[in-house]
Amino acid sequence: MLSTRGTAWSKVGFLHGKQNAYHPIRNPNGVVAFNNAENGFLHADLANFFNKHNHFEDNCCAYGEGYTGTLRLRTAMSNHLNLHFQPVWPIDPEDITFTAGVTDLNEVCALVTCNPETDAIMLGGPVYGTFSKDLAMRTGIKLEWVPVGTDQFTPDCVAAFDAGFEDAKARGVNVRALIICNPHNPLETLRALLQFCAAKGIHLISDEIYALTTYPRDDQPSEKFTSIRAIDYSDIIDPTQVHVLYGMSKDYGAAGLRLGCLVSQNREFCNAVRAICRFSSPSQFSMDLAAKFLEDQTFVKQLLDKSHRVLSRIRLLTEKLLDEAGLKYEKKGNAGLFMWIDLSPQLPLRETNGDGWAAEKLLSERFLRAGVKVDPGAEYQSPEPGRFRLMFCVEEDTLREGVRRIVAALKAE
Amino acid sequence: MLSTRGTAWSKVGFLHGKQNAYHPIRNPNGVVAFNNAENGFLHADLANFFNKHNHFEDNCCAYGEGYTGTLRLRTAMSNHLNLHFQPVWPIDPEDITFTAGVTDLNEVCALVTCNPETDAIMLGGPVYGTFSKDLAMRTGIKLEWVPVGTDQFTPDCVAAFDAGFEDAKARGVNVRALIICNPHNPLETLRALLQFCAAKGIHLISDEIYALTTYPRDDQPSEKFTSIRAIDYSDIIDPTQVHVLYGMSKDYGAAGLRLGCLVSQNREFCNAVRAICRFSSPSQFSMDLAAKFLEDQTFVKQLLDKSHRVLSRIRLLTEKLLDEAGLKYEKKGNAGLFMWIDLSPQLPLRETNGDGWAAEKLLSERFLRAGVKVDPGAEYQSPEPGRFRLMFCVEEDTLREGVRRIVAALKAE
Repeated sequence: MLSTRGTAWSKVGFLHGKQNAYHPIRNPNGVVAFNNAENGFLHADLANFFNKHNHFEDNCCAYGEGYTGTLRLRTAMSNHLNLHFQPVWPIDPEDITFTAGVTDLNEVCALVTCNPETDAIMLGGPVYGTFSKDLAMRTGIKLEWVPVGTDQFTPDCVAAFDAGFEDAKARGVNVRALIICNPHNPLETLRALLQFCAAKGIHLISDEIYALTTYPRDDQPSEKFTSIRAIDYSDIIDPTQVHVLYGMSKDYGAAGLRLGCLVSQNREFCNAVRAICRFSSPSQFSMDLAAKFLEDQTFVKQLLDKSHRVLSRIRLLTEKLLDEAGLKYEKKGNAGLFMWIDLSPQLPLRETNGDGWAAEKLLSERFLRAGVKVDPGAEYQSPEPGRFRLMFCVEEDTLREGVRRIVAALKAE
Repeated sequence: MLSTRGTAWSKVGFLHGKQNAYHPIRNPNGVVAFNNAENGFLHADLANFFNKHNHFEDNCCAYGEGYTGTLRLRTAMSNHLNLHFQPVWPIDPEDITFTAGVTDLNEVCALVTCNPETDAIMLGGPVYGTFSKDLAMRTGIKLEWVPVGTDQFTPDCVAAFDAGFEDAKARGVNVRALIICNPHNPLETLRALLQFCAAKGIHLISDEIYALTTYPRDDQPSEKFTSIRAIDYSDIIDPTQVHVLYGMSKDYGAAGLRLGCLVSQNREFCNAVRAICRFSSPSQFSMDLAAKFLEDQTFVKQLLDKSHRVLSRIRLLTEKLLDEAGLKYEKKGNAGLFMWIDLSPQLPLRETNGDGWAAEKLLSERFLRAGVKVDPGAEYQSPEPGRFRLMFCVEEDTLREGVRRIVAALKAE
């Protein structure tokens, strides 16, 4: 009785209903989730701020200015970005379009840049695995994954993207846009990517939703975040080919607001995006709270400082626990909520006749049975099997219990 | 640089930025909007309620239970519907799926029931004109409009739907679902439509978002609202073919919450819908406020009573003003925020060489120039030209000014 696509989607997993989250006292048998992506350490401070600014005017109940972000929120966001992203050309409120989260904007960018069947978006792996659902689940577009590994942090990635682009072209696939997750690209890499997109005549979409999760480490030199908008690219690429995605979910631990925005100087692009924003309207109450938050830059700074302290502390603790357990991991990095752990030496290859990806999957299932969720590299377009993405931004108790369960699952077999 | 669909959407209008709304003192030259669809009389009471219940727990900031409605909200909504809709089989929280508005759910239903190109949804006209955008703008499905006129309130509509279905079939179009806007269908009509859908093997989607806007009139007998779920259809149709849409925007004047829900006993259907709810996630803050509201049925009753008093009063006043102006209108009806006014006698047919639809369009443009927005019947699949949809639920000052502008525009030419 369902359509073909409906039948396919009915078999896809979804979050629905209360989660069985580990808590040392209230739910010691619950699951340790190393796969979520939010900074829960900020929730209490943020809720406290919202509860001090929770008077709603009548017009929050109304349709009001519609589906694309109130002028107040877009103004607050443009001021905020002009302060923190240091754009070469100031960001105007009219360059900003809000929807109910960046997940939706990912799809919207795919729809607006690509025709179905023939057109593709290119991504370098490893990368946020759920892009595959966001970009392709409903749009009918193709994805071109380029295995760039740690090369994605250097201009060397361009050679890989170029090869991927030409390979796709030879197969009749038109790459129409490149999506990158920034931060993780030093200045020279960003410039090289801009040149690449200019040469190919494609859009560059810079997902900067983790921009201000960049934290200084006291044990090694730290990279700084550079927004694509902080580069004067007027001599490199037509500015209408460059778009930034941002939102409230990651930097501020405010996923529950469901607010993401597109920043673009391309009028036609923005018009097309706004026309389909009807399907993902943000809450007026969320927009009101977010505007009040972004207008209070003293509190924003406090919250970001706390975020950076927490992330630095918990990352160093995670590294210590992994060292103690004798597990390998990616030692560099000072942005985001994740790190790659390298369990390739622990892969149960004998049980899978040497098949690395099957062994990674088997390991992943064992972790689940041991009560710890940690996403395998295959879901993130990892070039080699055995990598797992560890979301370390959890309470210390939870972190210790999760690592303990990983170690136990590795030893048990 | 945009995709074909992106280029098309870039030319579609959208709400973006502050509106120029009429106010007798603050903005006397503003536009009188007789085309919005919300009960603004409830906004102050509702905002007042929310401001008394605006303490947010930390977990409102989090992803929490994901994208399909918190268990608390789904439980509150199921209790609410079981009280007000009097369903034959109680509605379970697990039958409910929330997204950020019914606009999105309309599209989702189209996606899940229809394959692109060959499949269609059937609607009887006149009907909510924006269904055409909601259902077809991104989905690639077809729409089959059946001109049923006032027959849609009687079982006679089935003959028209049957003819429309067979006509579509002959053209190679598979109608896979019928969408109705309920209330406006008496019990016998609903039963006849259930039989029709059973016979054709198609889904019946009952959009009941205006359910509790049904108000008693003191000047004539009033229809009562009957939910499709209030009918024991187990002997008529497979219950997995029947789905209800509901939301917070219309009955409670709470569009700003952006909360709509699907009520369905079809597991596979719900699973498919939930899988794509990732693109239209509701705000946790909105869900928290809505749950608190629905849990307080004493306040819900107060608000609904006020809604019905206001709608009855303002409708009678509108009728009085239209009578005084010598304009024709549909005298029956006691639900929703609209009435049909019949300006067919006033159509400037001489100026359009007798073309009624062109004359309707010309009149519509004159109203706009006169500062009053009122949607022409063509946008609502009206069977004959000259009807306009008047949204009368506005302040008395605004109503009087809007009718004055309509009359002035009619006289000026």
